[in-house]
Amino acid sequence: MLLQGKSLLAGRTGATGGTIFRALNPATSETLAPDFHEASLAEVDAALQAAAAAFQDYRARPAETRAKLLETIATEIEALGDTLLQRAQAETGLPLARLQGERARTCGQLRLFAQVVREGSWVDARIDPALPDRQPLPRPDLRRMLIPLGPVVVFGSSNFPLAFSVAGGDTASALAAGCPVIVKAHRAHPGTAELVGHAVVRAVAACGLPAGLFSLVHGGGASVGIAMVKHPAVAAVGFTGSHAAGRALCDAAAARPHPIPVFAEMSSLNPVFLLPGALRERGAALAQGLLGSFTLGAGQFCTKPGLIFALRGPDTDAFLQALAAAVQGAACATMLTPGIQAAFVENRTKVTTVPGVKILAAAGAVPDAKKTQGQPSVAVTTGANFLMNPALATEAFGPFTLVITAADADELAACVRALEGQLTATLHGTAADLASAGPLVALLEQKAGRLLVNGFPTGVEVSPAMNHGGPSPATSDPRYTSVGTAALLRFARPVCYQNFPEALLPVALRNANPLGLMRLVDGKLTREPMA
Amino acid sequence: MLLQGKSLLAGRTGATGGTIFRALNPATSETLAPDFHEASLAEVDAALQAAAAAFQDYRARPAETRAKLLETIATEIEALGDTLLQRAQAETGLPLARLQGERARTCGQLRLFAQVVREGSWVDARIDPALPDRQPLPRPDLRRMLIPLGPVVVFGSSNFPLAFSVAGGDTASALAAGCPVIVKAHRAHPGTAELVGHAVVRAVAACGLPAGLFSLVHGGGASVGIAMVKHPAVAAVGFTGSHAAGRALCDAAAARPHPIPVFAEMSSLNPVFLLPGALRERGAALAQGLLGSFTLGAGQFCTKPGLIFALRGPDTDAFLQALAAAVQGAACATMLTPGIQAAFVENRTKVTTVPGVKILAAAGAVPDAKKTQGQPSVAVTTGANFLMNPALATEAFGPFTLVITAADADELAACVRALEGQLTATLHGTAADLASAGPLVALLEQKAGRLLVNGFPTGVEVSPAMNHGGPSPATSDPRYTSVGTAALLRFARPVCYQNFPEALLPVALRNANPLGLMRLVDGKLTREPMA
Repeated sequence: MLLQGKSLLAGRTGATGGTIFRALNPATSETLAPDFHEASLAEVDAALQAAAAAFQDYRARPAETRAKLLETIATEIEALGDTLLQRAQAETGLPLARLQGERARTCGQLRLFAQVVREGSWVDARIDPALPDRQPLPRPDLRRMLIPLGPVVVFGSSNFPLAFSVAGGDTASALAAGCPVIVKAHRAHPGTAELVGHAVVRAVAACGLPAGLFSLVHGGGASVGIAMVKHPAVAAVGFTGSHAAGRALCDAAAARPHPIPVFAEMSSLNPVFLLPGALRERGAALAQGLLGSFTLGAGQFCTKPGLIFALRGPDTDAFLQALAAAVQGAACATMLTPGIQAAFVENRTKVTTVPGVKILAAAGAVPDAKKTQGQPSVAVTTGANFLMNPALATEAFGPFTLVITAADADELAACVRALEGQLTATLHGTAADLASAGPLVALLEQKAGRLLVNGFPTGVEVSPAMNHGGPSPATSDPRYTSVGTAALLRFARPVCYQNFPEALLPVALRNANPLGLMRLVDGKLTREPMA
Repeated sequence: MLLQGKSLLAGRTGATGGTIFRALNPATSETLAPDFHEASLAEVDAALQAAAAAFQDYRARPAETRAKLLETIATEIEALGDTLLQRAQAETGLPLARLQGERARTCGQLRLFAQVVREGSWVDARIDPALPDRQPLPRPDLRRMLIPLGPVVVFGSSNFPLAFSVAGGDTASALAAGCPVIVKAHRAHPGTAELVGHAVVRAVAACGLPAGLFSLVHGGGASVGIAMVKHPAVAAVGFTGSHAAGRALCDAAAARPHPIPVFAEMSSLNPVFLLPGALRERGAALAQGLLGSFTLGAGQFCTKPGLIFALRGPDTDAFLQALAAAVQGAACATMLTPGIQAAFVENRTKVTTVPGVKILAAAGAVPDAKKTQGQPSVAVTTGANFLMNPALATEAFGPFTLVITAADADELAACVRALEGQLTATLHGTAADLASAGPLVALLEQKAGRLLVNGFPTGVEVSPAMNHGGPSPATSDPRYTSVGTAALLRFARPVCYQNFPEALLPVALRNANPLGLMRLVDGKLTREPMA
């Protein structure tokens, strides 16, 4: 399968003539063929216009069409076979087994959204039957459901080249909700993006849907991205990446004549709290578990535990010794790009050069610059120091974590209050620890979107109950998740139909409930048809 | 009951010493005692800090406490008796019967939210049980529900001094969701605000809740308002008012270090489409109905029909004649404030001075300036002219509407496409008209939050299926309604609890389902306890 290096714009390949770039293999520092051609603003405009036109067709199709499309995309991705995995490995330096797992997750996610769409109750159908005899005024017949928002621009992440990129969670949830998608390909894995993009294009064609439903744009960073966010045809934006880039998109969207929502998943330190009983009973196991979690994927997870809190004492000292020993033996690992590797070193330095911070341990192995390696390390400081130095809350995206030892429970609580918004927060404790952890949980509920007990935050399940989101600056909108089936709620809005004749109503709202949806009828949840 | 003219700040009355203002009776142009004292920024800060503290208490209370609070507020408002209605009438010029109806709606709304909170399923509880044997990785136990966002600032509207003011829809839905409320009193009805504010304060005390749960701030317009929106303790904002003021609040919220959502309901023309059969069969009745709707409350409804579309022809001519005759006989009515009256005249003039616009009719009665009266009138122009002149889409908040006659269905469709976002859109048609109205409905779904058939948009039911919202600029966020029980979804966010011991889980997520909620368990909606 030969890569063409061009954008895929409403089913057509983009033109050449603009700026050219190549992908880089971070494990060898070699550039990879072919050349990739950036799309022009005129091409982007045409793709967005095509998406707006395709929206009017797609949104009118039955749920079954959307479900079939999602399933067909999954099948087409699987049909890419090893070609996809090999290119993804070359572009990201991620291990093959990890990429196999990520592909399974990507396809499973598409199929899960197909199930949700096919079942259909996510549209939150509500029916208030007419009360013609009510005094002092009759009630009209009112029926409400969620309909899709419109074309969605998706900015794929660097660290999940499959599961949060071209056909990842944002794309799957937008298509599931009934919205066309225009993906801005991540420059770190353009070939992977093109392969998956072609799979989506084939699925769209196979389902007899308009080509404008999907486009993949190769573009030169901020200018094309901001132009897409400002384009009048765009109704919403999904983004996973840095805080600076996410905030720039949010600001651009908020400044539009008609602002649109941006769902940006940006940064998180994912604090972990080691409670006294857990430290006493299994400090060494915690050290091993935390090492595994903060170095997973070379520490390049949004949910990497970047802050570890414990009360000072002999059990914590023993834990720190065990953690130091584990880190010293850890291997260096290839990071996604030289830029990410450099930013990692820079941000880690910001933390470790704060007075009062001690580097507890670093991996004994020397990182190989040619292999774009990150060196695992861990630093330690006090709660008092954490409270004085906001720089200690800098996210170093890579294999680094900072242990904060607090003098007492009050200092620990003060540290929690000082935290900004997070994707996750984790408690490790014995039954006795947890029995008195209510106040800590109450504080953490205000800080994070997911709370874990005796686990590690780096695994994010794709399921109905998952929440991958959290207060600012973790995300731009804590009311929504970007992982799990609730993610499609981001791309829908309610419409109320008042006194509509049956034939003019959307099928979901008709008396007979032909789709068998769970609906709120006269204030009661039921799957029954209307009497 | 003597008015004190002071803010109510976490249960205490505000200080004097700042700027003083008085309410005005628009029906007599006389100012009303007593003096009202603007709160200082320091007082506002203290109230918001108190709200943040009260939030930690209130959000931990059972749903029953919230429900009781809402019901007690309703009872306390009713206990104000005629004092409230008389003051509201003096401050707004609205008829007593209308204010009685509005009070009933306000109290009914509080009690409806109490029911929703007591039933409890709105928290969208979701449980994915652990799958310890799943390959390649086990699934942890995941449980998710909505929790309250935090303190909400409410800017009451001028035109609903009870139902969308101090204890109106925004306040009721925020308290129902579990959020403290700080109301910025509208300067047009400060006495009404104080009376209702005291009722809320009494209810908070009677329920044994912290006084910081509710504050009422008298303030000097933009500066206090913007300071509240920018305050770090504030989690969300509800607003009903002009587009300029709403947009200023949205911009201030978006520019915060940690942006927060603003739910602003701002402007709408509420287009009405008179289809040919309806015009033929009941043109005269439509004229009467439309007159009633666009002059209701002196035309001061967010849902006032401000644009009426019809195809040119003899039936439309007859309708225009009937409408002209009806308008000529209409009475002038007192508007809410001299400022609103002046803005009405100014914006109406913006429309009627566009070349090609003809004033079809105005009420024969001369408006009395001392009574702050608005004069009902109607103008007419062509679809071609509407398409050329964006000024024709100016909202004139008052008793005025503009009829657009289109040459043909294509011109009509072009007019629909040119519309900005709306709260409502209405079709009047016979069964035959409606049988072919599918394409028009499909266009209007993209433009409005509520679509009506053979009704008038000015009545807004408070019920589960209502949607009072719509695309920008009608509101700042089309994904939410500000009227009806779904309004409380604005003030909540999901949190996921992973692998939590039963005792540490919120009650809504426990195995036994003690609250009897409808929950999504393993992807299936059920009220059953977990096995």
